Amino acid sequence: MNFRVISKYMGNILMLEGAFMLPAIIVALIYKEFSSIPALVISILLCLFIGYILSKVKQNNRGIYAKEAYVSVALGWIILSFFGCLPFVFSGYIPSLVDAFFETVSGFTTTGSSILTNVELLSKSMLYWRSFTHWLGGMGVLVFLMAIVPMSNTKGSGEGLALMRAESPGPSVGKMTPTLRETARLLYMIYMVITVAEMVLLVISGMPLYDSIVTSFATAGTGGFGIKADSIDGYNYLSQTIVAVFMMLFGVNFSLYYLILMRKVKDAFANEELKVYLSVVALSTLIIFFNVKGMYDNSGVALLDSYFSVSSIITTTGFATANFDIWPQLSRFILVALMICGASAGSTGGGVKVSRVIIMWKAIKREIIAVISPRKVKTITMDGKPVSEVVIKNTLTYFCVYWFIAIGSMFLLTIIDGFNTEVTVTSVMACLNNIGPGLDMIGPAGNYSMFSPVSKIILSLNMLIGRLEIWPMLLLFTPSIYKNTTKKI
Amino acid sequence: MNFRVISKYMGNILMLEGAFMLPAIIVALIYKEFSSIPALVISILLCLFIGYILSKVKQNNRGIYAKEAYVSVALGWIILSFFGCLPFVFSGYIPSLVDAFFETVSGFTTTGSSILTNVELLSKSMLYWRSFTHWLGGMGVLVFLMAIVPMSNTKGSGEGLALMRAESPGPSVGKMTPTLRETARLLYMIYMVITVAEMVLLVISGMPLYDSIVTSFATAGTGGFGIKADSIDGYNYLSQTIVAVFMMLFGVNFSLYYLILMRKVKDAFANEELKVYLSVVALSTLIIFFNVKGMYDNSGVALLDSYFSVSSIITTTGFATANFDIWPQLSRFILVALMICGASAGSTGGGVKVSRVIIMWKAIKREIIAVISPRKVKTITMDGKPVSEVVIKNTLTYFCVYWFIAIGSMFLLTIIDGFNTEVTVTSVMACLNNIGPGLDMIGPAGNYSMFSPVSKIILSLNMLIGRLEIWPMLLLFTPSIYKNTTKKI
Repeated sequence: MNFRVISKYMGNILMLEGAFMLPAIIVALIYKEFSSIPALVISILLCLFIGYILSKVKQNNRGIYAKEAYVSVALGWIILSFFGCLPFVFSGYIPSLVDAFFETVSGFTTTGSSILTNVELLSKSMLYWRSFTHWLGGMGVLVFLMAIVPMSNTKGSGEGLALMRAESPGPSVGKMTPTLRETARLLYMIYMVITVAEMVLLVISGMPLYDSIVTSFATAGTGGFGIKADSIDGYNYLSQTIVAVFMMLFGVNFSLYYLILMRKVKDAFANEELKVYLSVVALSTLIIFFNVKGMYDNSGVALLDSYFSVSSIITTTGFATANFDIWPQLSRFILVALMICGASAGSTGGGVKVSRVIIMWKAIKREIIAVISPRKVKTITMDGKPVSEVVIKNTLTYFCVYWFIAIGSMFLLTIIDGFNTEVTVTSVMACLNNIGPGLDMIGPAGNYSMFSPVSKIILSLNMLIGRLEIWPMLLLFTPSIYKNTTKKI
Repeated sequence: MNFRVISKYMGNILMLEGAFMLPAIIVALIYKEFSSIPALVISILLCLFIGYILSKVKQNNRGIYAKEAYVSVALGWIILSFFGCLPFVFSGYIPSLVDAFFETVSGFTTTGSSILTNVELLSKSMLYWRSFTHWLGGMGVLVFLMAIVPMSNTKGSGEGLALMRAESPGPSVGKMTPTLRETARLLYMIYMVITVAEMVLLVISGMPLYDSIVTSFATAGTGGFGIKADSIDGYNYLSQTIVAVFMMLFGVNFSLYYLILMRKVKDAFANEELKVYLSVVALSTLIIFFNVKGMYDNSGVALLDSYFSVSSIITTTGFATANFDIWPQLSRFILVALMICGASAGSTGGGVKVSRVIIMWKAIKREIIAVISPRKVKTITMDGKPVSEVVIKNTLTYFCVYWFIAIGSMFLLTIIDGFNTEVTVTSVMACLNNIGPGLDMIGPAGNYSMFSPVSKIILSLNMLIGRLEIWPMLLLFTPSIYKNTTKKI
């Protein structure tokens, strides 16, 4: 294990975080929230100081391999969350370190679960930073680092790809451009443009500027932190519709936007995952609409609420315009299923990912066909191209580990807090899939404050496991990764 | 698809079923239940008549391949259940055909879920047949056929193995003896000896003879149909202990009993799956014991109830001496986790199977090690022997399909009946894993009568899918299996 290069990354991440906290001070100055400024200043200085020291550790020329990449990503996200929670602790808005850590992990992982009973008590600068964590976490902090910092080591050719693989969602990572640095820049460029587009449209629709900015951050990262107790329900229908559409857009694989940018619109819409994703959104919206229509006076509002909820849950954003916890059991169940499915690979959304579900589905079909004609060689294709056996095996294993972790976490939560089955199951699913709200006590109208500190740590780990797609976090806690030899399994 | 050979099997199965119903008439004569006799006689005659016609279909020499084996097994079990439910319908004890079918599927698949609100209303001969279905379903009806009917076709060398693979539980089937017919005979011999041992011990412990017989049938098949409203709780502690121990024994891979018979006791106990299985039983019993101790005046009874429940649930039997639905959330959760895990491969128990869990666990570990040292060739071993990649891929796929089916079924049940999350989730898990009772309304003190007919059919299919381990039932409903060409996936 090359600890020196890991230290360099941690240092860079911290300095970056310090820099990203600066705008929060501007917000504090604008709104004259002078009591929030010292907390922000101390946090920024800590980030920059410790970051600087870590980044100056002397490097060797051993380069970075997959295991260093996984550990860097896992450790980087934990450090990011730890330092990111300091402003909340220092300012006294969230005095408990565990609570603040939970809230910040929830921010960076774009989960959107909150321990706050009344979010409106926080200062505007704190809420700004809280929502900004969604934006940074959505596309990934190491991807950002890659876009701005040159990464050439002697053996560094595979360095960026390993890091990007470890941080980006989905079963496989495709290079869009010849160099990875360009890809990272392009990704962030597209991300920024769509985010700004949402901000502008929201302002036009009548949402205040500050609200438009933080809501767009949370939409872009598919995070879901709101700044109002009633989430998005207090804004007008036009604003709600804009948020709903943008949530759906941020759940699309970003490489498709690149295709559209390259005027290959037809290729983009021929994408298999996109077609399945849009069909699922449309179908779920319709079923839920007919299921809840009777509860509304106005069909239009019922349709908007249905579409908003589906878009919010499948992209694992977690914004709410309606308390879907009180909807009929069928609608509630569809939403839970969408939680697990999740959005597209290569988007900012969480969950298992539509493309993984498609690959699993095809692997199952192949298994059936193997019985019918055992001698035929069968290749699974996606968008006309063959999917490698490694990706298929990895996808199947992924889903198995996913359930092991889910059931194990539910088990621990049950031991520690012993809430009812619905709360236990949906809290783990909502955190592991980076959604935010669950059902019952943790539904759109509830929050996570009643969990004990240990449970909050477990749920925080679940959020990190979900965002980083299992392997980096698992590897971080595998002792043998730090040795140079491996034992037989 | 060779429909002629399938017809022959269906015929043989039906004639066998008719023959197995005969003892129920003797029971009816002993207890002077003359009203039950006509229903039994008509059912037997129907089985024998239709069975004879089907078995006499002219055969060709095309032999049987994997797909014929899977379809035979799936169709065979449906036919078996359909004709098996006729005595209940004709006698008027369960007038609804759907209810009777559910009850019989539950019997043959050794699930033990019941739609009866008061089981004690049934006649002794009907209860005898109901419990006997567990015994026959436990080891498998085609395995029985194999043991008594010669199966030589021109291409028949692989015939038996294909059938046995399709019907036997677990990720792979091992031949214990040179010929499969001997293996089938040996399996049934061991099965019969242990069943009779339990009967004898139960009689000695003070249980009435009739009760001992039917209870042993239900234990042997790990089914769980009781003949009393309070399941096993009404019998004395000695009887309860005997049942608990035998449930555990029937959850052990039967090939280990063969090893013990061959005086290779050490080899048997060195078996990896056995060690994990026994450890899980011991550990779960202890945790539950300490969790529920406070609810009991007597620690001994608490320990017995804990052990009994663990043994009953991990083997997916479903007998109860305590209403574990009112236990603390931790104990309830452990029991749900044990439901999914299930007993050993090659036993009569259901669930995912301990050996599959072990293989998945090792596949996950290997995935982690692959990141640490990518160039190492890694083989997964079980009991010192390498596990083939086909078995590993199949196991991973199995678990994925398992969740697809579980979630899909929960979805349908929610649409149709809309019961609460706990009932919906545990009813599907209890049927898919062939356990019997779930939690809440379908807990040990409840039953499945409140589900609508369509839901009962869905749950029946879940029981069959669980018992036959997914593939046969999936293939039965795959249209392309009946064509000779296959399309690209």
